Amino acid sequence: MKAAGTVYLVGAGPGAPDLLTLRAADLLRRADIVFHDALVHPDTLALAVRAEKIAVGKRCGRHSTAQRFINKRLIDAAQRHAIVVRLKGGDPMLFGRAQEEIDALSAASVSFDIVPGITAALAASAELGISLTRRGVSRNVAFITPRTGRGEKQHDWARSALAADTCAIYMGVGEAQHIAATLMARGASPDLPLVVVENSTLATQRSVALRLADLLAAALPGITGPAVILLGEVYRRALPEIVAFAEKRTDAA
Amino acid sequence: MKAAGTVYLVGAGPGAPDLLTLRAADLLRRADIVFHDALVHPDTLALAVRAEKIAVGKRCGRHSTAQRFINKRLIDAAQRHAIVVRLKGGDPMLFGRAQEEIDALSAASVSFDIVPGITAALAASAELGISLTRRGVSRNVAFITPRTGRGEKQHDWARSALAADTCAIYMGVGEAQHIAATLMARGASPDLPLVVVENSTLATQRSVALRLADLLAAALPGITGPAVILLGEVYRRALPEIVAFAEKRTDAA
Repeated sequence: MKAAGTVYLVGAGPGAPDLLTLRAADLLRRADIVFHDALVHPDTLALAVRAEKIAVGKRCGRHSTAQRFINKRLIDAAQRHAIVVRLKGGDPMLFGRAQEEIDALSAASVSFDIVPGITAALAASAELGISLTRRGVSRNVAFITPRTGRGEKQHDWARSALAADTCAIYMGVGEAQHIAATLMARGASPDLPLVVVENSTLATQRSVALRLADLLAAALPGITGPAVILLGEVYRRALPEIVAFAEKRTDAA
Repeated sequence: MKAAGTVYLVGAGPGAPDLLTLRAADLLRRADIVFHDALVHPDTLALAVRAEKIAVGKRCGRHSTAQRFINKRLIDAAQRHAIVVRLKGGDPMLFGRAQEEIDALSAASVSFDIVPGITAALAASAELGISLTRRGVSRNVAFITPRTGRGEKQHDWARSALAADTCAIYMGVGEAQHIAATLMARGASPDLPLVVVENSTLATQRSVALRLADLLAAALPGITGPAVILLGEVYRRALPEIVAFAEKRTDAA
């Protein structure tokens, strides 16, 4: 039996509520039920005036609802509601595990659609004022994660990082020392500059500029929010500016 | 002398006007003057009800205004206007040449801010319903372009493409045969699946699924709009679905 409703996998963007797309905001206003990641901003959820709101994870594996159970809830909700929104931090199609939900919805003959969102690395680049690509310095960007999902085989994340001019590392702060050690052991310069941006686009945003060897020497201090590590030569000449920027943000907050 | 106004480098997103962010829409409504890329949607420009609108390129190098002249116009506009918007297709910080404008504005002591946008590869992935990353298949994504800017030295775009699980190739359709020949000569499988998505998110969107060897054999038929090439194993099992999706889109248009 074909479900009556449609499930929308919607990117909530990097954090700031006004970095949502117009399409996502409109869907939230019309939604009957919203299943959302734990870190979605309250003001974003508040747009869904008509909807029942259900938190379903995920936060670095803690307190997260099992993916299979989320899939089942989305399918069940589409039997009872016209507009079901699955709201994910950032963009659904980049480290968002959207494919597992898409495949489950397809297998159950539930209609679905996907609304893209601003991904963390692009938002952090805008905040820093440093472009990921730059003529003559960086002509390509790798988006990687060193994390391995439960039951997933190891993957060679370092190969892709080393081949790229600029690298955006997601879900990597907890393994920062391992990242630095691995990249340096495989030929990356200890002097390679990087920026860690925490809580990008929120009032609590912080950023710190380092060199790869610094990352090896010490754990990142007190980073508890979601963070992205941006790595590459584009961050070298701008390094003093980054520090100034981070201070300005702190003053403004 | 410090300019009175602020220049906002704003991502217009992939094409569909409702994939603009709320922040970008608000800035356009308040803008005094808008300098925009040639391909920005008319409905997006129409949001800027108060503003003088000036097209400044760029479309694959044709009819484009020289970057140095654009920089000068932005600086001049900030002397006369409070809110100057530089509206760019996609995201400013990924193949958007934003750094040249940022550096010019900084050098002239003009205040600036950057608003991120949905980049073409994320929008195309949403339209196709195929995630760039996927557990056990793709854990990283390279964003590359084979194009070389005027006066810029050659770069090894293929190395980054070959190291990544999934690859999003921007501004590559005109060199599709060269891309396929280069990647295959350096070890990529002729059987590697890919999807070309043209005019992503617009009513005129088209997509075609191929294997790398097919790309070598024939020029892409009749692609004149902006297009992104998505390459990687994630597209293999979904290949029949992609064809069905492309037909559905054509019927709906």
